[in-house]
Amino acid sequence: MKKLTVDLGERSYPIYVGEGLLNDLADTLGKHQIGTKSPHLIVTDENVAEHYLERVQSLLEAGGYRIATAVVAAGEKSKSLAVLEEVITVALEAGLDRNSAVIALGGGVVGDLAGFVAASYMRGVRFVQIPTTILAHDSSVGGKVAVNHRLAKNVIGAFHQPEFVLYDIATLKSLPERDARAGLSELVKEGFILDREFVYWCDTNAERLLTLDSEALQHALYIGCGVKAKVVSEDEKEGGLRAILNLGHTIGHALEAVAGYGELLHGEAIAIGMVGAARLSAKLGNPETIAAETERILRKFGLPVRIPAHMDTDAIMSAMMHDKKFSEGNMVFIIPKAIGDVEINKNVSSVWVKEVVEGLKRED
Amino acid sequence: MKKLTVDLGERSYPIYVGEGLLNDLADTLGKHQIGTKSPHLIVTDENVAEHYLERVQSLLEAGGYRIATAVVAAGEKSKSLAVLEEVITVALEAGLDRNSAVIALGGGVVGDLAGFVAASYMRGVRFVQIPTTILAHDSSVGGKVAVNHRLAKNVIGAFHQPEFVLYDIATLKSLPERDARAGLSELVKEGFILDREFVYWCDTNAERLLTLDSEALQHALYIGCGVKAKVVSEDEKEGGLRAILNLGHTIGHALEAVAGYGELLHGEAIAIGMVGAARLSAKLGNPETIAAETERILRKFGLPVRIPAHMDTDAIMSAMMHDKKFSEGNMVFIIPKAIGDVEINKNVSSVWVKEVVEGLKRED
Repeated sequence: MKKLTVDLGERSYPIYVGEGLLNDLADTLGKHQIGTKSPHLIVTDENVAEHYLERVQSLLEAGGYRIATAVVAAGEKSKSLAVLEEVITVALEAGLDRNSAVIALGGGVVGDLAGFVAASYMRGVRFVQIPTTILAHDSSVGGKVAVNHRLAKNVIGAFHQPEFVLYDIATLKSLPERDARAGLSELVKEGFILDREFVYWCDTNAERLLTLDSEALQHALYIGCGVKAKVVSEDEKEGGLRAILNLGHTIGHALEAVAGYGELLHGEAIAIGMVGAARLSAKLGNPETIAAETERILRKFGLPVRIPAHMDTDAIMSAMMHDKKFSEGNMVFIIPKAIGDVEINKNVSSVWVKEVVEGLKRED
Repeated sequence: MKKLTVDLGERSYPIYVGEGLLNDLADTLGKHQIGTKSPHLIVTDENVAEHYLERVQSLLEAGGYRIATAVVAAGEKSKSLAVLEEVITVALEAGLDRNSAVIALGGGVVGDLAGFVAASYMRGVRFVQIPTTILAHDSSVGGKVAVNHRLAKNVIGAFHQPEFVLYDIATLKSLPERDARAGLSELVKEGFILDREFVYWCDTNAERLLTLDSEALQHALYIGCGVKAKVVSEDEKEGGLRAILNLGHTIGHALEAVAGYGELLHGEAIAIGMVGAARLSAKLGNPETIAAETERILRKFGLPVRIPAHMDTDAIMSAMMHDKKFSEGNMVFIIPKAIGDVEINKNVSSVWVKEVVEGLKRED
């Protein structure tokens, strides 16, 4: 098992990465002062429930815990205020109190939803993240939790740090191939942001990662979570630096919104967005090789690097107008200056953005 | 104008109390770095909108501000996730960004709803409280914001401190008499908690307060907000001490829930709850005169001090089981030890509580 710390003063917490860690979950809860007196709530989705819920619940009950469960539909649709209200109904009926914890068992959707339940239930109870996808390495670290509004993703939420993050590599083995690829997109992204060496390690080890080799996954998640933890430690509430984690997200979020949530997986949309950001970089005077390298490496993971031709450019541009990263009319982009180095650029012309979007639609 | 400070380190903020303060709102926003570049949102209800919205909006627009408005139905029903989502739709459509502020113009319902909008919109934007009722002196200071769930009041929310609270006494002149009485209930409560002198000042000045005399109101709101500010400063997130502000609320919230939100005004339910807490105090061995004095003074303000006979005792008891102040099966009550002095008692027998509830139903 490897252990990382997200350093946030009195809100600091550990990330545990290893194989089989779920077996010791009751002990780990106990070590974190999450006791057996108050009931706790596991939030998960139908798919994850099928694989792990019974086992996790039994393990915890054997450890003396009272566990309520809320199983939501798989997919982005569950990140809504309506589902939040249903989960809170379960919490109330199970008698969760201020000493209770909400445990997210699943991918990013479950983590974001369960996290906002934890943030808002009785104005905040404790929260545990058990990510079961590669993609969720990103959303499970850093305390950003939210649900969607029909006009914009993640626009209703909070900053609510977990007590700990527990990454059991064993749970990744049941990932469908497409989800694995999409998750690796976000993991390579951590390298593109500030770890050139990790990008080329991923380039070299793409095959091992795609076949879900335990050792490779453990290394990559340790490094990826480490990048995330480092950035979050320096900027908990997205005052500035933390925005670099959104490389590829401005275009990516817009594509997800226009495609209808779920048509493009998040990691796929982000892959296209990273190519877009690299092309904007070239327009800003940086080497064109950045875009070429970005595209080559993402293609190696079988990720899409073009915008589906049927998508309407104006719809994409207008979806960006509701993006949280807009501020006072300026377009803000995370721009790669080299492989493994980015900057926050607040003066990206919307004309350039439109050119890049249209360029990404025309080719291939 | 009188000015108080809620001392919370870097989240400290002032409370301004005075007559005609709304006239200078644009200046006050500017002083608090709420600028004219980003649009801002006023949240209010139909009743308050009729009296003040046009004027406030004009004053701000004259100061160069772009103002969107969300007018919700008056009453507790608007404290729901459904209404929250509607208000956030307005915010998104108006283009509110992270530099925007949400301004609550109204009573406690508007403040709680708008505050949770501010806490959750883009994971938190700035918030301004302009209470227009006496009751709202309590909810507008302290940063507790929330909406209701059908099973429990205030169970979905956050701690989100405002930038400032602006109390314009002039807005209180349009208060209906019943609302004024109910507001004075919560104001006298601040005295019962830790200011015996203020309780007897209210006793002596009841008539001036009931006729909404400016000078009397300004003094009472200044003292009442001061008590609230003092307690909140010492315990921002209800770790312990802050619970004393809930004197009368355990029974009061249950009565409101059973009566159907709105049948009993909050301040009326709290008045009955304070008498209940005082009677529990006698059962715990404190002088019976506390209950007699509490009742005498509240009656002087025309407040109810008995539970309506038609209410079901079991329903009241079971509503308390979902109350946030329960923890690990113990019943927690705020108990007056004398007029102007309370304690948090975590070992109040539910048998006693039931006896008190039934006693309050039988008489009168």
